[in-house]
Amino acid sequence: MKHYTRKELDMLEKRRRINLVNSLSGYKPANLIGTMSAAKQTNLAIFSSVLHLGTTPPLFGFVTRTTGDVPRHTYENIVETGVYTINHVHESFVEKAHFTSAKFGRETSEFAACQLTEEYLDGFDAPFVKESVIKLGLEFVEEIPIKLNGTILIIGQLQHLIMPESSLLKDGNVDLHAAGGSCISGLDGYHRVERAYRFPFARPSSIPDFDQL
Amino acid sequence: MKHYTRKELDMLEKRRRINLVNSLSGYKPANLIGTMSAAKQTNLAIFSSVLHLGTTPPLFGFVTRTTGDVPRHTYENIVETGVYTINHVHESFVEKAHFTSAKFGRETSEFAACQLTEEYLDGFDAPFVKESVIKLGLEFVEEIPIKLNGTILIIGQLQHLIMPESSLLKDGNVDLHAAGGSCISGLDGYHRVERAYRFPFARPSSIPDFDQL
Repeated sequence: MKHYTRKELDMLEKRRRINLVNSLSGYKPANLIGTMSAAKQTNLAIFSSVLHLGTTPPLFGFVTRTTGDVPRHTYENIVETGVYTINHVHESFVEKAHFTSAKFGRETSEFAACQLTEEYLDGFDAPFVKESVIKLGLEFVEEIPIKLNGTILIIGQLQHLIMPESSLLKDGNVDLHAAGGSCISGLDGYHRVERAYRFPFARPSSIPDFDQL
Repeated sequence: MKHYTRKELDMLEKRRRINLVNSLSGYKPANLIGTMSAAKQTNLAIFSSVLHLGTTPPLFGFVTRTTGDVPRHTYENIVETGVYTINHVHESFVEKAHFTSAKFGRETSEFAACQLTEEYLDGFDAPFVKESVIKLGLEFVEEIPIKLNGTILIIGQLQHLIMPESSLLKDGNVDLHAAGGSCISGLDGYHRVERAYRFPFARPSSIPDFDQL
C-alpha cells in the first residue's frame, strides 16, 4: 500500500489528478437528466451525482456548476420550467448516454444528436428518455449553493415514476439488474453490475458469524 | 411500463415505500466512514451517500441526519475531532460492512463488533479500515443544512490517500474493479461490479455511429 499525501496529489499532472479524484468516491449512479427551456428546446445530459436525500417526502439531489466557461443548460432549464426528469442509464444505450456530455450549443438537442427518444407525460414539461426503463419526473424544490467551489446542489421532489411493474419487487426494492442498469467510475468508466445479494436489517442482537462471500 | 403518480407512491405501505424510494437514484457507492470521539472511542458506519464534489481542491460530501431517535456518532465525532476516513467496501467484507448499520451504543466500536481492523496514520485522529484497499483521510470543512428534511451535507477535503500503486492506472483512473469494489442499491442490496469499459472524451465533432454493446 502506498500513502499519497495531499501535497503529492496536488503535484500530479492535471488530467491525471482529475481522473484520480473523480474515481475516489467509488461507483456512481448513471443517470440522464432531461429538461426543456421555456422556448421548448429540449436538453439531455449525463450526471453521476444523483443522490437520494429523503423518503417522506421523496427528495433527490444532484450537483452541478453554475459558473465557468461551460454552458449549464440543465440548470437554466430547471430554473425556467421548474421540472426535470431523471432517467436511469442502461447498458443498451450507455455509449449514447456518454456522448450527451459533448458541448453542443443550446440550439442542439442531445436527444437528436445522440439518437435517444423524447417521451412525455401530459402536463409535465420535461422530456423523459424512452429507452430508459426507470424514469423519475421531478419538481424543482430548492438550490443550495456550495460556496467552497461554486457548485450547487439541486433538490427535487418526486412527482412521477415510470417503470415496468415487474421491476418493483414484493418488498418495494427495484430490480435494477433486471432493468440492465450500469454504474460509473471516474469520468468515463462504465460498469456492468451483477444481481443483488441482500442482507437482513442489522441489529446488535443479530450479528452473524460473518461467513464472507 | 406503468406510470405511478406521487399519490400512488405515498399510499404504499411504509417499508415498501422506503425500499422503493431508496432504490430510485440508481447504484450507490459503498463506503465505511471511520471516526473517533474526543475520548478516543472509535466508530465505523456504512454510507451510500458519498459524493465527489470537486477536484481543486479535492472535496467529497456525504449526507446524514442530525436529528431523530437514532444517535449520530459519525456526525458528533467529526465535529469533535475535525477528521474522518472514507474506506471503500469490497466484496471480501461486504457483510461485515453492512452490519455496522446496527444501532450499537456509543461505547461499542463497530470495528470490534463487526470484526474489522483499525489502522492509523501518525498525527491523524481517525481510524482507517485495514481491510479496505482504497482509503481516504479527510479534514472536515463545512456542514450544509438541508432544511427541507433535517439532513446535512458534510463536506471534507482530501488530505491522505492510501491505496496500492498498482490500482492507479496510467491516466489517473483508479482500477476499482481490481480492488474488489462493490456498490449498493436500496438499503440492503449489494452488487458485484464488472470491469470498466471507457469511452473517449465527448466532442460534438466526434459523435460515433453508436454501435451498442
